[in-house]
Amino acid sequence: MTVAIPLGYRLAGVHSGVKRNPTKPDLSLIVSDLPATGAGVYTKNLVFGAPVGRNRALTPAGDFRVVVTNSGVANACTGDQGDRDADEMGRLAAEAVDAAPEQALVLSTGVIGAFLPMTKIASGIQMAKSQLAATDEALMSAARGMMTTDTVPKVSGYQLTLRGKTIHVCGLAKGAAMIGPNMATMLAVILTDAALLPADAQSLLGRAVNDSFNCISVEGHMSTSDTVLLLANGAACADPLAGDDLEDLFTAVHQVCRELAMAIVSDGEGAAHLITIDVAGCADRESAHRIAKTVGESALVKTAIAGADPNWGRIVSAAGYAGVPFDPRGVSLSLNGVQLYESGAPLSFDAAQVSASIKDHRDTHIELQFCEGTAGIRFWTTDLTAEYVRLNADYHT
Amino acid sequence: MTVAIPLGYRLAGVHSGVKRNPTKPDLSLIVSDLPATGAGVYTKNLVFGAPVGRNRALTPAGDFRVVVTNSGVANACTGDQGDRDADEMGRLAAEAVDAAPEQALVLSTGVIGAFLPMTKIASGIQMAKSQLAATDEALMSAARGMMTTDTVPKVSGYQLTLRGKTIHVCGLAKGAAMIGPNMATMLAVILTDAALLPADAQSLLGRAVNDSFNCISVEGHMSTSDTVLLLANGAACADPLAGDDLEDLFTAVHQVCRELAMAIVSDGEGAAHLITIDVAGCADRESAHRIAKTVGESALVKTAIAGADPNWGRIVSAAGYAGVPFDPRGVSLSLNGVQLYESGAPLSFDAAQVSASIKDHRDTHIELQFCEGTAGIRFWTTDLTAEYVRLNADYHT
Repeated sequence: MTVAIPLGYRLAGVHSGVKRNPTKPDLSLIVSDLPATGAGVYTKNLVFGAPVGRNRALTPAGDFRVVVTNSGVANACTGDQGDRDADEMGRLAAEAVDAAPEQALVLSTGVIGAFLPMTKIASGIQMAKSQLAATDEALMSAARGMMTTDTVPKVSGYQLTLRGKTIHVCGLAKGAAMIGPNMATMLAVILTDAALLPADAQSLLGRAVNDSFNCISVEGHMSTSDTVLLLANGAACADPLAGDDLEDLFTAVHQVCRELAMAIVSDGEGAAHLITIDVAGCADRESAHRIAKTVGESALVKTAIAGADPNWGRIVSAAGYAGVPFDPRGVSLSLNGVQLYESGAPLSFDAAQVSASIKDHRDTHIELQFCEGTAGIRFWTTDLTAEYVRLNADYHT
Repeated sequence: MTVAIPLGYRLAGVHSGVKRNPTKPDLSLIVSDLPATGAGVYTKNLVFGAPVGRNRALTPAGDFRVVVTNSGVANACTGDQGDRDADEMGRLAAEAVDAAPEQALVLSTGVIGAFLPMTKIASGIQMAKSQLAATDEALMSAARGMMTTDTVPKVSGYQLTLRGKTIHVCGLAKGAAMIGPNMATMLAVILTDAALLPADAQSLLGRAVNDSFNCISVEGHMSTSDTVLLLANGAACADPLAGDDLEDLFTAVHQVCRELAMAIVSDGEGAAHLITIDVAGCADRESAHRIAKTVGESALVKTAIAGADPNWGRIVSAAGYAGVPFDPRGVSLSLNGVQLYESGAPLSFDAAQVSASIKDHRDTHIELQFCEGTAGIRFWTTDLTAEYVRLNADYHT
């Protein structure tokens, strides 16, 4: 791997037994040797997992020491006992690194409605503690310990020089791959050895997430557990960043978030195509986002791409019900670079050629142009295949 | 068939050649011998078919004579030429029954972005004119002439006695079945031989549609052409209804709309289950509707039912992102009569038994209870099967 671990962090991923398969890591520790500023962005679902409630109350703040994650059980829809379990999991992780309970953040992903097996969690934390390291192997083990039905671990790194120091940014994520036993839970942890004030960390993370994780969709089902955390421990440069330096770090964090977001979509369940949707000419970014998201979550658009079908009426009609006002006579559309629709009227085109361009490439490019303004957005989604249905119709018990 | 045709209407369905297959009717005429009050409810999609634009401008009004429909081509996303074609189609139908152009309503369903073959439409209208009749056979031919990928024609009837007269209500509909060549276009025409003032017809139709066609979903893709028309010609009772009589007619129209809506969902593409979602305990009807629709359009919920998987976390989490505020600790859920989740905490249940109850029946019943108020709604949807994906991924050219 070419991803450098930021200074002052150690990681581990182990099999604790939450998952049945002993070859699959299911518990990870990410430890910062220095107290780190931590910020978080969480699911907007009203039905949120117990760890989300706990983390939301703790972030942003300035002295986190450990992030503990488990896969296999999401600890969501588990009532009061779920809250107690999340707190206990945080307490155990903090204790393992001689920290206070509120210095630990907790992430859980997996089945909704099941309780955490706390004995396994406790012994897993001890096992992981004994394996903490700042090596490639430890990083990949930690990334694997977050996975549910992801087919590959997802890490991304970036280096930059600020104030004469090399600053590292590194991210670990798991995706929205879902089969029977699991509920979509997108998790990501971004680490940096720069120093950040809590408010800056929160604002920087929010901006980065907006154009990355908030611009992807597999099937549009918002999970109970989506969480992106940012830790900044100052090990490379102890003085909190400000001004242009802060903006440069934003660029780095943004880049890492985008790479992880793309990796999540690319690993979407049953996906045969990665679809990039560019929406331009909107009154504002929010309008562009709503249109792109509506197109990207239309089952008809996604099945058309799965079938290499340039059935562009599905794209235009999806835009039309996004809830964003626009002049239908000002809409134009290109598919893989071929213009199919211009100013509200169809163009003649070589359907066989466009179909072949979809069929022959994993990447599909949809460009929608409106005449309402200058705002735009880029959004990523997958196609919808029979394999996706097969995976998600499998009985989960 | 046991559906009686209201007095004063004649119908016909023929093959005009818009569709290639000569065994499939693709053009229908519905003629009222007396001028009929007509009301319409249309798609809210900003990208709407040319016939929707025409009809919306004409309804409600008091003297319609003919509804002409074609399947195979939706005449949507067709620019100015599409508007001219819809007007010409209306003029031709009106001419065939010695009426003025504005006495004709036009419905088109099928491929988006293709132009109507006007020569075929013109000869089809002449052919249909020669076959107009008030027989079961004519009614079924007219219903068949509206079909795209529906597997069965959809008609429904209702009789009631008002002011000593027998009043008939009869409805024809086509569904949201979509494969490669076609775009979802739900169309329905409701006929009655009662008399209604235009404003009453519009209000009555709007209320009936709200609890029927607006409470179904196959995959949530709003079409460019969805239209429900109501014609009331007064042939059975010439005096416009009012007061309790109007309310009784509403009950009849509502019943016909519900039956047609259920028929559309039951004939949903690739559907193996008809899912009824009851949402109760909401602050208002709109909140209940949003929650039911969000649950009913979740790919994860729909694949779980396809797989007979009582994966209830998917249902609760879908409710959580519907955009409706509620207390997560006040949510309870039953699946096929078995309570799985109560006041925000999971109950233990026999998963194999619930799975078998889904697998062994075409009907699945989801009941979601909230603690926000007393409003509720009933909503119908289908499961999402691999067959649906296969049908919609077929190349359309």
